[in-house]
Amino acid sequence: MKTFKIAILGFGTVGSGTYEILQTNHDVIRKRIGADFAVSHVLARHPEKAEMRGANPALITSDPAEIFQDEETDIVVECIGGLEPAKTYILEAMRHGKHVVTPNKAVIAANFEELTECARENGVAFRYEASVGGGIPILTSINEALAANNFTRIDGIVNGTTNYILTQMADNDLSYSTALKMAQDSGFAEANPTADVEGIDCANKLSILMALCFDTYIPPQDIPRTGISAITKDDIREAKEKKVLLKLISHAVLLDDGTVDCWIRPTEIPQDHPLACVNNEFNAVVLDADMVGETMFVGKGAGALPTGSAVVGDLIAIMRGRF
Amino acid sequence: MKTFKIAILGFGTVGSGTYEILQTNHDVIRKRIGADFAVSHVLARHPEKAEMRGANPALITSDPAEIFQDEETDIVVECIGGLEPAKTYILEAMRHGKHVVTPNKAVIAANFEELTECARENGVAFRYEASVGGGIPILTSINEALAANNFTRIDGIVNGTTNYILTQMADNDLSYSTALKMAQDSGFAEANPTADVEGIDCANKLSILMALCFDTYIPPQDIPRTGISAITKDDIREAKEKKVLLKLISHAVLLDDGTVDCWIRPTEIPQDHPLACVNNEFNAVVLDADMVGETMFVGKGAGALPTGSAVVGDLIAIMRGRF
Repeated sequence: MKTFKIAILGFGTVGSGTYEILQTNHDVIRKRIGADFAVSHVLARHPEKAEMRGANPALITSDPAEIFQDEETDIVVECIGGLEPAKTYILEAMRHGKHVVTPNKAVIAANFEELTECARENGVAFRYEASVGGGIPILTSINEALAANNFTRIDGIVNGTTNYILTQMADNDLSYSTALKMAQDSGFAEANPTADVEGIDCANKLSILMALCFDTYIPPQDIPRTGISAITKDDIREAKEKKVLLKLISHAVLLDDGTVDCWIRPTEIPQDHPLACVNNEFNAVVLDADMVGETMFVGKGAGALPTGSAVVGDLIAIMRGRF
Repeated sequence: MKTFKIAILGFGTVGSGTYEILQTNHDVIRKRIGADFAVSHVLARHPEKAEMRGANPALITSDPAEIFQDEETDIVVECIGGLEPAKTYILEAMRHGKHVVTPNKAVIAANFEELTECARENGVAFRYEASVGGGIPILTSINEALAANNFTRIDGIVNGTTNYILTQMADNDLSYSTALKMAQDSGFAEANPTADVEGIDCANKLSILMALCFDTYIPPQDIPRTGISAITKDDIREAKEKKVLLKLISHAVLLDDGTVDCWIRPTEIPQDHPLACVNNEFNAVVLDADMVGETMFVGKGAGALPTGSAVVGDLIAIMRGRF
């Protein structure tokens, strides 16, 4: 029975969540896939922090070259986040013949064509289910189960921070700044919430969805974008009177001439629309396609274990030989 | 470039929908998978009917043995429906080394262990995404993208006929018999609606979901079941007053002792619950699992092209070498 060696770069939320799932569900996964696996390395800038979070100290290193040059390492999981050194590490791993899994929507959206091409040139897998919608199997559905279709439209609530804030504003008649503070106190928003509340995070995810659904790469910075920071209590009240909810929607449609129209902005959703039921930290993506029609996927868009579930789902696919 | 030969048994709704997708989207699928494919046979009891529905007459046969003995046929799609000869054909195909894809929930639920074991013994694929939730990628998600998880709960609206009837009763203050007649006139219910309205179709689907989620096979006839035929206008009115909707829910939960508790019955769903937004012919499945938490999948549970999309998704998986 083959034993796959998996290196985890970074031991923050997703890195430690991935590690935890590989431990906790080790036996059931091994039986399901008919192969064994082990974490071979944990790359951490602060080894003592990684150890406090639960990493086996024998696996911890702060030298990435040690990982890329280790011929026994089969798969690298990039959980550092941000653009660099994440991009460099991903390319290095691929050039050393290692498969790559990552939840890092920013690095993928900024470098989609380069990363995809590098994986193809080196004959390795490049999987990133966790980069859009956390644990929701949205990318796998697009690429695999729904591969008989041509997609025509995407509508998503793909950021849990903003969805939490808007839900709290609507449910509890709160101002934006009060709801933001609540989100921060509850761990649903960062100390610097800009990337979330201004829709930058949404743009990264929409860029990835469009690349996969429409075979069209639009850099995230080219997507017209309005966040939620200007929404007032009056806006929420007016929406209630009109029997709609305000949601931050990421939208893209493939036009008849083959071009793509896309935007991200607060949008009125009728109260009886399925997206109106997607609240707080939940995410949802609605797809329209020529054969299956409309489908919707709902789940937790963030968190150590939900996102780790998507990362490990990708690891399982690779260990089963499905790139 | 390999050319896969696909035989379609039966040319009703799903058989013809599958055939149509393989024609219409032939080029885009071929590019996506890097392999070619062709329908080699269409098995039809009434060849002239199949031809009228669009089957190439050169492919039509009424002799199943011709298909099973054809060494060039790689994959058999069973679209006859019912228990026999569907079961016999599936086993014959597998014993002749052919992969099998089917939307037939009745034959799978009645023979789950025998069919699964025969596929394993003969080293062939046995895929049936279309058997639960039509085009919704629910089984692929359970078996693949969510394979890092242990599932604990299933709640589904998995029958479009009954969901359509209940939606019309609630939205338009109709009696059950009036709503049933409307469903029949609109093509959402059969002339003999028993299997749908009494929850038998749900039982087949729940049996399959439990087998895959809990690794526990419960024959459909052993699932406690109440259909919708006794629901009155008063029931609907009382539900509205309580701010709930009546939905036919198929439910299963894995208990701490490893046993499974399951039932199918009309259930009160709070108006703000995500399942309350799933109306008319739409289906939905909610799963709860240890790592990803709660996920929901929504889409069209029936129809030639939605169901055909799931069948062709399975064909694509097989042609990509993923059993």
